[in-house]
Amino acid sequence: MVGCYGKLPEEKVFKDPVHRYIHVRDELIWALVGTREFQRLRRIRQLGTTYLTFHGAEHTRFNHSLGVYEIMRRMLDNFEESDTWDARERLICLASALLHDVGHGPFSHSFEKVFHMDHEAWTRQIILGDTEIHRVLAGVDDQFAQDVADVIDKTYPNKLVVSLISSQIDADRMDYLQRDAFYTGVSYGHFDMERILRVMRPTEDQAVIKLSGMHAVEDYIMSRYQMYWQVYFHPVTRSAEVILSRILHRAKKLYHDGYQFQDEPKHFYSLFHGSMTLSDYLKLDESVIMFYFQIWQEETDPILSDLCQRFLDRRLFKYVECDPSTQMNHWLELRDLFVQAEIDPEYYFIIDSSSDLPYDFYRPGEEEERLPIHLLMPGGEFRELSRESDVVEAISGKKRTDHKLYFPLDLLEDDRTHADTKKKILTLLMSQEG
Amino acid sequence: MVGCYGKLPEEKVFKDPVHRYIHVRDELIWALVGTREFQRLRRIRQLGTTYLTFHGAEHTRFNHSLGVYEIMRRMLDNFEESDTWDARERLICLASALLHDVGHGPFSHSFEKVFHMDHEAWTRQIILGDTEIHRVLAGVDDQFAQDVADVIDKTYPNKLVVSLISSQIDADRMDYLQRDAFYTGVSYGHFDMERILRVMRPTEDQAVIKLSGMHAVEDYIMSRYQMYWQVYFHPVTRSAEVILSRILHRAKKLYHDGYQFQDEPKHFYSLFHGSMTLSDYLKLDESVIMFYFQIWQEETDPILSDLCQRFLDRRLFKYVECDPSTQMNHWLELRDLFVQAEIDPEYYFIIDSSSDLPYDFYRPGEEEERLPIHLLMPGGEFRELSRESDVVEAISGKKRTDHKLYFPLDLLEDDRTHADTKKKILTLLMSQEG
Amino acid sequence: MVGCYGKLPEEKVFKDPVHRYIHVRDELIWALVGTREFQRLRRIRQLGTTYLTFHGAEHTRFNHSLGVYEIMRRMLDNFEESDTWDARERLICLASALLHDVGHGPFSHSFEKVFHMDHEAWTRQIILGDTEIHRVLAGVDDQFAQDVADVIDKTYPNKLVVSLISSQIDADRMDYLQRDAFYTGVSYGHFDMERILRVMRPTEDQAVIKLSGMHAVEDYIMSRYQMYWQVYFHPVTRSAEVILSRILHRAKKLYHDGYQFQDEPKHFYSLFHGSMTLSDYLKLDESVIMFYFQIWQEETDPILSDLCQRFLDRRLFKYVECDPSTQMNHWLELRDLFVQAEIDPEYYFIIDSSSDLPYDFYRPGEEEERLPIHLLMPGGEFRELSRESDVVEAISGKKRTDHKLYFPLDLLEDDRTHADTKKKILTLLMSQEG
Amino acid sequence: MVGCYGKLPEEKVFKDPVHRYIHVRDELIWALVGTREFQRLRRIRQLGTTYLTFHGAEHTRFNHSLGVYEIMRRMLDNFEESDTWDARERLICLASALLHDVGHGPFSHSFEKVFHMDHEAWTRQIILGDTEIHRVLAGVDDQFAQDVADVIDKTYPNKLVVSLISSQIDADRMDYLQRDAFYTGVSYGHFDMERILRVMRPTEDQAVIKLSGMHAVEDYIMSRYQMYWQVYFHPVTRSAEVILSRILHRAKKLYHDGYQFQDEPKHFYSLFHGSMTLSDYLKLDESVIMFYFQIWQEETDPILSDLCQRFLDRRLFKYVECDPSTQMNHWLELRDLFVQAEIDPEYYFIIDSSSDLPYDFYRPGEEEERLPIHLLMPGGEFRELSRESDVVEAISGKKRTDHKLYFPLDLLEDDRTHADTKKKILTLLMSQEG
Repeated sequence: MVGCYGKLPEEKVFKDPVHRYIHVRDELIWALVGTREFQRLRRIRQLGTTYLTFHGAEHTRFNHSLGVYEIMRRMLDNFEESDTWDARERLICLASALLHDVGHGPFSHSFEKVFHMDHEAWTRQIILGDTEIHRVLAGVDDQFAQDVADVIDKTYPNKLVVSLISSQIDADRMDYLQRDAFYTGVSYGHFDMERILRVMRPTEDQAVIKLSGMHAVEDYIMSRYQMYWQVYFHPVTRSAEVILSRILHRAKKLYHDGYQFQDEPKHFYSLFHGSMTLSDYLKLDESVIMFYFQIWQEETDPILSDLCQRFLDRRLFKYVECDPSTQMNHWLELRDLFVQAEIDPEYYFIIDSSSDLPYDFYRPGEEEERLPIHLLMPGGEFRELSRESDVVEAISGKKRTDHKLYFPLDLLEDDRTHADTKKKILTLLMSQEG
Repeated sequence: MVGCYGKLPEEKVFKDPVHRYIHVRDELIWALVGTREFQRLRRIRQLGTTYLTFHGAEHTRFNHSLGVYEIMRRMLDNFEESDTWDARERLICLASALLHDVGHGPFSHSFEKVFHMDHEAWTRQIILGDTEIHRVLAGVDDQFAQDVADVIDKTYPNKLVVSLISSQIDADRMDYLQRDAFYTGVSYGHFDMERILRVMRPTEDQAVIKLSGMHAVEDYIMSRYQMYWQVYFHPVTRSAEVILSRILHRAKKLYHDGYQFQDEPKHFYSLFHGSMTLSDYLKLDESVIMFYFQIWQEETDPILSDLCQRFLDRRLFKYVECDPSTQMNHWLELRDLFVQAEIDPEYYFIIDSSSDLPYDFYRPGEEEERLPIHLLMPGGEFRELSRESDVVEAISGKKRTDHKLYFPLDLLEDDRTHADTKKKILTLLMSQEG
Repeated sequence: MVGCYGKLPEEKVFKDPVHRYIHVRDELIWALVGTREFQRLRRIRQLGTTYLTFHGAEHTRFNHSLGVYEIMRRMLDNFEESDTWDARERLICLASALLHDVGHGPFSHSFEKVFHMDHEAWTRQIILGDTEIHRVLAGVDDQFAQDVADVIDKTYPNKLVVSLISSQIDADRMDYLQRDAFYTGVSYGHFDMERILRVMRPTEDQAVIKLSGMHAVEDYIMSRYQMYWQVYFHPVTRSAEVILSRILHRAKKLYHDGYQFQDEPKHFYSLFHGSMTLSDYLKLDESVIMFYFQIWQEETDPILSDLCQRFLDRRLFKYVECDPSTQMNHWLELRDLFVQAEIDPEYYFIIDSSSDLPYDFYRPGEEEERLPIHLLMPGGEFRELSRESDVVEAISGKKRTDHKLYFPLDLLEDDRTHADTKKKILTLLMSQEG
Repeated sequence: MVGCYGKLPEEKVFKDPVHRYIHVRDELIWALVGTREFQRLRRIRQLGTTYLTFHGAEHTRFNHSLGVYEIMRRMLDNFEESDTWDARERLICLASALLHDVGHGPFSHSFEKVFHMDHEAWTRQIILGDTEIHRVLAGVDDQFAQDVADVIDKTYPNKLVVSLISSQIDADRMDYLQRDAFYTGVSYGHFDMERILRVMRPTEDQAVIKLSGMHAVEDYIMSRYQMYWQVYFHPVTRSAEVILSRILHRAKKLYHDGYQFQDEPKHFYSLFHGSMTLSDYLKLDESVIMFYFQIWQEETDPILSDLCQRFLDRRLFKYVECDPSTQMNHWLELRDLFVQAEIDPEYYFIIDSSSDLPYDFYRPGEEEERLPIHLLMPGGEFRELSRESDVVEAISGKKRTDHKLYFPLDLLEDDRTHADTKKKILTLLMSQEG
């Protein structure tokens, strides 16, 4: 018993397509899964707009969160064969794994950019605030919720525990690579997790990898590399993200301009004001957002209506490569032509850079960096992975920023107005390709 | 060229986790996928409430519809190696496969029961009415949309074409078994589709199976059998369905009773009136329903609010087996006790029967039956599968109806009111188990 | 420590394509794997002549034996979570699982038939006789080798231990179904072993299955059923077996007739005499047999030479269905015609029955039967599987004997001699088909 | 019809665990598979001694050859959708793919080293000499066998055809990577072959890869890299190779020294003399070799007997890293100590270098090099892969030679003779590790 929680009388299992079964033996974990804040993750997709590129990727953060918990459980089981872990520390690890994403909202990336929010702050509030999750955690002891929040916040004193959830090779990443590969159907994303878990050794600061497992870790790093370029940075997904951000931006602007919405967008008011409470935040999920996008299709503002229709009917923007650093005049000229053609560039001429995206693959040595991977050499010393592995060295640290200009090709092809300007735009854009 | 549609200049592919790739070579198919009515299927889950039992099963009808199309494409490719198919007939097959589920709405099963609708009628309207889909189909020729509707309606004169989409072994079922198994993660649902496609032979009325492929078909039938009992009829899924139906029922009743909703449920008005137009119907999707469920949590009607909270937070009803035919008095007594305990049995005491569910496994010989599977014997004659296969014979035709009583255990365990009555109810219910 | 064996300082693993990893933690097991008698299993195929039908099935009994051990290990790990197992009893289970097939010789089925041997007797001798395996086992204690032999012999007093290796759902079968499916590439053979292991409960006499796992067991039984008819009884495999038996039969006859072999078949002498020692037996493996078949291709005896060429070059016999019980005259007439055509029927006119094969699927209630599968019902009583499961009931107990006549079509088509007789034979044979 | 060969009346299929089905539609291919020289490949393992490291890797060259054929068939099917291929050229491709390894003998690598043979020369002889294969090929036309031999020899004028079988991304490699990964059970070796085949474009000299497929090709190159280091160069496999070579070496030396073998090693005579005929060569397979190893265990020569026992019972040599270039004196001293301890260094002190192995991963720019992979850029020009891909650039061209000293630890630990010398040796060897 730790606090008021013991072991379940009989192990519970969830059938999981990625890990086959997710095993729950702790009453605490079972109670956390049943909270309304955790169930809410069923209404928030794991990969945002990616389902518009890879139709299989309709899975939610609920799905992923269970997976991270399961990997953590297996890690700790492996560690426990050699070491002993304190029962309370073990529950902290499991709870943190389960809850690490609980603060995510709908289409987090775009919302955070437009409304200057931070899902990690919300996670903290959910764990520490007036929630079912908090009440469950408080059942362990007075300090427990705070400790879980600190682990997720990376300020927990036991650095090893932090690293299991948040480092270059943690339960979070090992789950999402496999899970996102499974649901998108791509052939990348496979690596031998069973072997990695077996060659992990807990140390004071982080889990290190026995040298004999280096190739399994190389394979994991390569999976990440391929997943980032093939899935996470996919230009079509980014096109949908661009439209989504523009919708939010437009709605906010209309609101501040005093526009009269046909149905009051009540769920958005506190967002527009920057005064969102936890209770308001927890009401936001992707159903709610999609509901508004649907009714906004019939708003009188042509831009809001058009963008919402594009998003729902998947009539996305096209793109060309662009390098804003060297061809500034070219892009300024193009932007002016959009204005001339009466296509508002604020909403229809968008330069998007992959470096803005919240993903990295493997960049040891950067600031505000996750702990790099260390190998445990036969002599007992540690060595950073990229110093031993040619492959990892080759791909690490290279910041391959990729800029694209997104625009509505269909509007430009509509020659009923401004035909000459549009023709000129198209010529300039086409010269950009290949 | 058939009508205004030809081949695409370059084949398009969708990455699909079940069939690996979905290949599109026909302009017509590409155009249909791009319509807003088809894109709408992205907002309707394939398996309704099953995601509350199997968390992996979050896939939509969009996902499945592409899969059915792909299987049809492979079937026809196989047939074409021997026979020649008319180019127009081929497009009818492909379009029908893609569109066969296009009329599905959110949580179809419950909606159809409560509001007496029929998704097949909506499919017909979408194909024949004022829609983007209709305009695309009409581009082939004047008769084309009607022909596609007739295939889906099973009234098309070419019975072979109908059977490819709708028989005991059709593209629809072959896709959903594999896809639902993939997403739920269960180990059933695998069969050797490649082999089945290769032993299929087109005949005048249906595709038959060469005897040498009988074991692959047995395996397919067994997959269905296992999927139905393990996934489709899962009692936890049915518990969620029960709550969903009760929500709809309650909202409808409140409306007709003149109850004042805090936010007007505009999307439901025509449903409540039984006067829904195609345009209204197309606005219904699962985001919209989930939005209302969320705001209804805060309605003043305690039943509506409670049921919506249960659904969103997954606080489902428990169940016991029950046999209404032989223990009528027992159940009537129990129901009376619910009334005494002030727990409205209309919403909290629900008997649900699996025979009500829209699935069958293999029941040759029943009325209103799908065409059974025929084997092509070496001598050239046909024989119905269950006459050759012991295994299929064993499971076919057996109507294993299964009745369960669903009820809110938590309310019964709340002993602040009517403690004695509730205790009595619990005693009676427990005696039911085992 | 049990006897002189403890735990290995570090776990050893074998990479296994079926179970991913095979884990060895016990010094005893590691020592047994290293013995020459166990390594010899690398030279004996798991599925005899099946590789001539399914080219992937080239795996050996070494491969399978490790797999059975691994499943046993996982079973015991599961049991140990609830119960405690004596450390010595645990090692008996693991060693018996590893060694249960150690007495198999090359192409066991044919050898046993022609030379009246019994691989189970050889297993006993290897465990109890003057072998490396015996010396390793004796290191535990004086009784240990005898106990392992008794488990494999099914005479060990602890019936539960016996049942884990030898019952209708034991470690042996669970491994070979999955393994043979994997290597042949067929889509049958999959079942949810992880779930079966989790719902197994040890009782005094056998492991029983919780009712909630019935469907997983049904799936396992269906896999067996499909594997037997699709793989194990495959008529082409049986054709190769027929030729193999005839080679052995011919060589033995020639030897007893005083035929002068060009190279002395020394490895066969004791077999021909029925006086084989353990040491002689251990020298027999499939390389040795294949070596002789190769040099016998050049023997002067035309039948021995022809049959060996057929086997090595895979020029197998063709077959037609035949029912010896009802058409005796027909077959006798055909046989006479073979004699007339100077094609010795003893070697070229062979009726083979599947009921002779050493496999059964599920036949509870037969004599000399393996323990049937029992379900553990919610009330605590046991019930035999086929009484609960329609599917199992349908296929169990049905002895579907299948007779085939095997013959060399090529010799019959060679019309340089006895052209008329051969033509007559072919006509009669062809009338058999369809 | 091309020559006397047309299409089969009905497609034949082989069940294959890697490609699911292998499809044969051409009479020529069917006839080639049935020849005795092709069937002989069933008796030659694909990965030599690797089965002693990865027990699953018991598959043969028969297995692989069918796989290469199938990939070639799919490649050509893809090409034919755009281009037209001459029917005869198509058959040349298919036959060359099937037969490219037909000259391999048992444990080719060791045999070729010890007896200075060349399997490619034998392949040519089998195709052009007095064989069933030659007779089948000659049935097409007089030139056909020569053309097939030229393709395998890389001298065929159509360079594109040559490149499909023998380049950095050919049917051979694509099969063996996937197949060897499948049978060993490692998690590397997966790549998206379906995509690679779809982005391949035939050009005059070779097939190039559309830039959009670059990531799939990166994945393929990484698979190769991992397979080479994890499987093909595995030090335990090399230990078995070392022993095998020493056996052959010893037998040859004994023979030339006039040693009297107990059983005449007839199959080896022409090898020992360097005068092997095609007919002799075709009699060599792994059964024959294993037969001799078994009987040689009982030879009076202690070295031959010991080495054969080691090989059969898998008592392999241990190894330490060694760098002969910088520590020459150290190794010479060690070697002298072996002599002092009466352990013949010629057989028991072996330095083996991975650079001797017949594998490379990706080294564009080296001489006698396979054609590197070229990307087809959007503008139509070609670019060598490693210039576009950081990952490929990182691993290509790096010759990571790895030297190991192999020795029999058990002999050194036997302290009944030369105890002090052996202790000294062990101390020196141990200082090598870590």
